[in-house]
Amino acid sequence: MEEFATAELLDDELIIRNQKEASTVYNKGFFGEPQSGGSLKISLIEAVFLVTIGRLKVNEGREELEIKDLMRYAAERHSDFEIKYIVYSDLRTRGYVVKAFSEQGVSGIDFAVYPRGGNPKMPAHYWTIAISERARFSIDELRQQALTASGVRKELMLAIADEEGDITYYDVIPSNPKGKVEKAKLPKAGGMLLKDRVFLWEEGAAASYLRPEFYGKPLGKGLQISLVETAHLMKYGALYVIDGRRGKHIEYDDFVKKARRIQHDFDLRLRVYEDLKSRGLIVKTGFKFGSHFRVYRGDPDKCHAEYLVHALPSGYKATWPEISRAIRLAHSVKKEMILARVSGEGGEGIDYLTIGRARP
Amino acid sequence: MEEFATAELLDDELIIRNQKEASTVYNKGFFGEPQSGGSLKISLIEAVFLVTIGRLKVNEGREELEIKDLMRYAAERHSDFEIKYIVYSDLRTRGYVVKAFSEQGVSGIDFAVYPRGGNPKMPAHYWTIAISERARFSIDELRQQALTASGVRKELMLAIADEEGDITYYDVIPSNPKGKVEKAKLPKAGGMLLKDRVFLWEEGAAASYLRPEFYGKPLGKGLQISLVETAHLMKYGALYVIDGRRGKHIEYDDFVKKARRIQHDFDLRLRVYEDLKSRGLIVKTGFKFGSHFRVYRGDPDKCHAEYLVHALPSGYKATWPEISRAIRLAHSVKKEMILARVSGEGGEGIDYLTIGRARP
Repeated sequence: MEEFATAELLDDELIIRNQKEASTVYNKGFFGEPQSGGSLKISLIEAVFLVTIGRLKVNEGREELEIKDLMRYAAERHSDFEIKYIVYSDLRTRGYVVKAFSEQGVSGIDFAVYPRGGNPKMPAHYWTIAISERARFSIDELRQQALTASGVRKELMLAIADEEGDITYYDVIPSNPKGKVEKAKLPKAGGMLLKDRVFLWEEGAAASYLRPEFYGKPLGKGLQISLVETAHLMKYGALYVIDGRRGKHIEYDDFVKKARRIQHDFDLRLRVYEDLKSRGLIVKTGFKFGSHFRVYRGDPDKCHAEYLVHALPSGYKATWPEISRAIRLAHSVKKEMILARVSGEGGEGIDYLTIGRARP
Repeated sequence: MEEFATAELLDDELIIRNQKEASTVYNKGFFGEPQSGGSLKISLIEAVFLVTIGRLKVNEGREELEIKDLMRYAAERHSDFEIKYIVYSDLRTRGYVVKAFSEQGVSGIDFAVYPRGGNPKMPAHYWTIAISERARFSIDELRQQALTASGVRKELMLAIADEEGDITYYDVIPSNPKGKVEKAKLPKAGGMLLKDRVFLWEEGAAASYLRPEFYGKPLGKGLQISLVETAHLMKYGALYVIDGRRGKHIEYDDFVKKARRIQHDFDLRLRVYEDLKSRGLIVKTGFKFGSHFRVYRGDPDKCHAEYLVHALPSGYKATWPEISRAIRLAHSVKKEMILARVSGEGGEGIDYLTIGRARP
């Protein structure tokens, strides 16, 4: 026989007055807040969950509320109640003790999730945000949330509910990618810009550029060099570039102007490329993986790329399916997805956020 | 000792006049077109390749042309020469006999690729298009090209050169997805629209909807149903919907209007959903994979989804990195990526194109 506790609906919360029922509900899963006098105050989200699993009846005055009416009541009072509820329910079903943050003043975070078998007096394991797949993704918000959580040593976990209520969990960690590749001495050499790439036909220079820093891609005995690589090599004083159509020398500033016309987000890419290079990493195009860069911490012939890095300007917004696709792809090729948020015009900063699938 | 043939540059083509050299070049790889009298006419792309691999010298008048000057010469005369050359060179290096279509009047196709060890008198294996990752993807063009190729029983292969000159190959095949799931008899039941999903709390109806057609997703003993599923079930006469906020009945047309506000491309998704359902398939959201639908040919509990289907309106354009990401993801989770091109307002037609990684 199942035993129901009975709660009374009072505006935005519920009270279980019977002391025995109150202590059973509290002790089996740490639902609610025990009150002096032995009653238990529970939130609407807790109530909906307890009704759904058959442990609670809710009365409004003398009448029992059906689950659908309680759900409607809660959805009227709280925006995004259904999404938060779906996530709450999923985490509870997985055996976690979950507490809503709504009244605890941590801005932008929905739940504290405690270790299985733990209780709300212990430190929380995750800080979780419940998000509908139809909500907008904002890189600035995500960065702020990740910093808030990591500042108090919590793991930030996003719970994205798709339109069928399936939940995908992601963890987000501020990161600091570093490699061990040293800057090589490079010979001066001339490349030729043909449309959207540079060709270098000098065999000796091609070989020095290819190793140890892995610039370009062999084509016959020469090398094709991408636009960001070319800009980097020009700045570094190694490569000079001839316009393939007119036969004239191109200065660095003019090259960058041309590159911007070919690739509208060239400056953004170049800033992240330069920063990753300065961190001792090998950086190659991530086209095959649908991201800007694939990044190696060591010799690309000996190890796979560890990161996929995508450069995003501050203020960037997107849809969650786009983000979901990028993370899923990185995950399936066993690479870490890193979002590089570029702020300011002149080099104010690049924040790296590692975002990956979590399995709570 | 390597032996060079010598070709003379004449405007847009080259001639190897020495008969012995001409027949060696033709016989080792079927380069060029043998001419009456024993000379060989070769194209610029063939010449650049033969020079690069050390089998040809090119003279313009009395002067020998360096590879970079020949490349520049060719790039001035032919738009996208560098991309076409990179693809040509890659296929040749893989051992294929490749002939350019430019003079054979097949619009929109760049190369005929013959089987390894074959020759241009045999039927071609692939029809290939060389594309820069910076070119625009157009669903209408792709459909036209796929129909052109499949009309003469060729496999259409796209060769996308990324900015480093790495090439990703895709094959594109008009397809006709079909499943074996029969339409079930469904009970009438009432759902409640809360924000962007419908909740059904009637246990019996929830169970009938869940099997055998797998509508919705269990939540407690009830079901969450997505917007497209709801519209489909309403049209089918099974589900009626109450507005969770106002408590009022929602008619089909009003539901669709609401759904459009929640999901701007709702009509597009619904048309493809309805068409896939009519083909005996089980259709669920593809959110986790960044596409509109994942599609099962049979029982989702017994088999994995076989297809990821993305609905695109005719006229749709995108960047190649986006397409690349979608295909790579589908490939890595062992599903076929299908683009569903929806044309016309009222049901003119849906074309399905399977697009996957090829490994020539």
